[in-house]
Amino acid sequence: MREIHADDMHDVALGAAVLGTGGGGDPYIGKLMAMQAIRQHGPVRMIDVEELDDDALVAPVAMMGAPTVMLEKLPSGHEVLAAFRALETYLGRPIDAVLCGEAGGLNSTIPFVLAAKAGVPLIDGDGMGRAFPELQMVTFTLHDVPATPLTMADDKGNSVLVETIDNHWTERLARSVTIDMGGSSLIAFYAMDGKTAKRAVIRGTVGLAADIGKTIQTARSERRSAIHATRDLLGGYELFQGKISDVERRTVGGFARGIAKLDGIEGHVGERFEIEFQNEFLIARRADGTPLCTTPDLITLLDAETGEPITTESLRFGFRVAALGIPGDPQWRSEAGLALVGPRYFGYDLDYQPVEALADAKASPTGGTP
Amino acid sequence: MREIHADDMHDVALGAAVLGTGGGGDPYIGKLMAMQAIRQHGPVRMIDVEELDDDALVAPVAMMGAPTVMLEKLPSGHEVLAAFRALETYLGRPIDAVLCGEAGGLNSTIPFVLAAKAGVPLIDGDGMGRAFPELQMVTFTLHDVPATPLTMADDKGNSVLVETIDNHWTERLARSVTIDMGGSSLIAFYAMDGKTAKRAVIRGTVGLAADIGKTIQTARSERRSAIHATRDLLGGYELFQGKISDVERRTVGGFARGIAKLDGIEGHVGERFEIEFQNEFLIARRADGTPLCTTPDLITLLDAETGEPITTESLRFGFRVAALGIPGDPQWRSEAGLALVGPRYFGYDLDYQPVEALADAKASPTGGTP
Repeated sequence: MREIHADDMHDVALGAAVLGTGGGGDPYIGKLMAMQAIRQHGPVRMIDVEELDDDALVAPVAMMGAPTVMLEKLPSGHEVLAAFRALETYLGRPIDAVLCGEAGGLNSTIPFVLAAKAGVPLIDGDGMGRAFPELQMVTFTLHDVPATPLTMADDKGNSVLVETIDNHWTERLARSVTIDMGGSSLIAFYAMDGKTAKRAVIRGTVGLAADIGKTIQTARSERRSAIHATRDLLGGYELFQGKISDVERRTVGGFARGIAKLDGIEGHVGERFEIEFQNEFLIARRADGTPLCTTPDLITLLDAETGEPITTESLRFGFRVAALGIPGDPQWRSEAGLALVGPRYFGYDLDYQPVEALADAKASPTGGTP
Repeated sequence: MREIHADDMHDVALGAAVLGTGGGGDPYIGKLMAMQAIRQHGPVRMIDVEELDDDALVAPVAMMGAPTVMLEKLPSGHEVLAAFRALETYLGRPIDAVLCGEAGGLNSTIPFVLAAKAGVPLIDGDGMGRAFPELQMVTFTLHDVPATPLTMADDKGNSVLVETIDNHWTERLARSVTIDMGGSSLIAFYAMDGKTAKRAVIRGTVGLAADIGKTIQTARSERRSAIHATRDLLGGYELFQGKISDVERRTVGGFARGIAKLDGIEGHVGERFEIEFQNEFLIARRADGTPLCTTPDLITLLDAETGEPITTESLRFGFRVAALGIPGDPQWRSEAGLALVGPRYFGYDLDYQPVEALADAKASPTGGTP
């Protein structure tokens, strides 16, 4: 058990935005909400999943919706408690611990708001080890945990409970309701027992976010490269550095989709790159189509000067960024994992190759991995 | 109490389609489903609302969606029972009696399916005295009965429970889920106690539907005009007879909307008429804009030869029809009633005038009502 205080949220939010791979919501808003809740209700007890009783009841909470909308419609903090309490009422018993559905600026911090308000511990872990755009895209699905009963609440006082035949139907119905609720909603879902959580949760990702945040802050204060420090901490690869020359984006069906085009800078002058996103960055490639890193591995853009992680909604012409590729959780690299979150699920005509293999191929262009 | 047998459903479905004013779903499908359920489970006990204990729990069930979709996606009958049981579970007690949300071909018969399957009595009455396109458009809303908790079920096994801050929000959220569920859903909603039901329910409309059906059948067998017999039974007016010259329709946001244009026939040769619909017929007027009958009064189209009621989805070029205008329930003619279902709510720049007054004005064009 470790106590998380209001000031710890700076590191958590910063690091979670790195893991959020451009999605997971704006880190600033979530951080402020969590800090306010912790100051009001006291520190949050963060526990390891192994500390749970096998028959404990746990459930993630999250904000659902397009990050572009979340920037304009701030949640009050009451909504997430309403969704959490509705799930408890439906299940007929208190929920013993909360966790993050995904790692991301907002969705790594919203569960702290709930943990502080409801006085429950927060499990150090999540269901993605990163952020993904759809709610069935969690390791819980790989372990046959149903997403439903799922409870939803909006800022106006409306709530909805969904029970579906599979987690794809949950995504479909909850997405439409989210759009009606004004583009974002707060949800509680994937209730499971402690025994299941020990198998299904990707462990340690909240603590990892805090470590990433501290690493970036420390590198900055010591005038070292925050980009290199982050890359080394996560065992990742610097894919390229570039200047954004164009961003196409549209909000479709509740998602922020688009493509960013970049001209190489620093050691990459004369090269051109593209990044496809759907709430999160999903594909990084050369302009000729050569893949550099693909989902489910993490693609994170950092400001080339400050190392600040850049979300998809803040992409702008002229930004100078470094792109990191980071190995995704081993659970995602399985056949079942790739069927759920691999490039082809998102409509890209591309087989997944681990970022390590792509980096090796880049390092030795005539050979590649044996 | 009156027992309704399978064969009684012919009259109920036929008469309900008259009250359905072009909407409320296809009478044929609902009739077959109700007859099958009654044959399997025994006759349905139909009771007057006064037979209820004040603390009895009652709730309407209905099919929600565009009639055009319902024609292609038949419910199995399991869905309505699933929605009904989910509402009982949520409320924590059995529901003592069911009723119709609206009067219409499908939604006057679906509650018989439920009553037969669940073995509960059916109240002789409904919440509209006709059909309307949106779910807040019931007398229950006028009596401050919340539409929620509302439960929804689809043919695949998905279910949703909605709790909202007002009945307009219920319509909005349930409509989106209905579209996702494939364009139609089965719902249970407006749970209320017997005391409230005695105030809020429009009484006797199921028995009235049976009477209308019998009247049409008898007139046909006696080779009298089914149109005149229906008009006289309901205290209505024959607005015109016409041949459909054009139908524009589109399915928008889960609704079947459109306009039918008609050339006068019989005593109306040389005249032209228009009927606006949104699932139901809402405005009947001369082509020059003079209103003949408007919502909330009932506009019913009957086949000029057979007296068979015509639903909006079966309107076709060349159909010869008689249009009846029938006074709506007095509750709808109040200020609150007109705010909920009057012409202006539907976007027509028109003040409501009772069909009696419009008929008088037509009869004495220089004077009108004093």
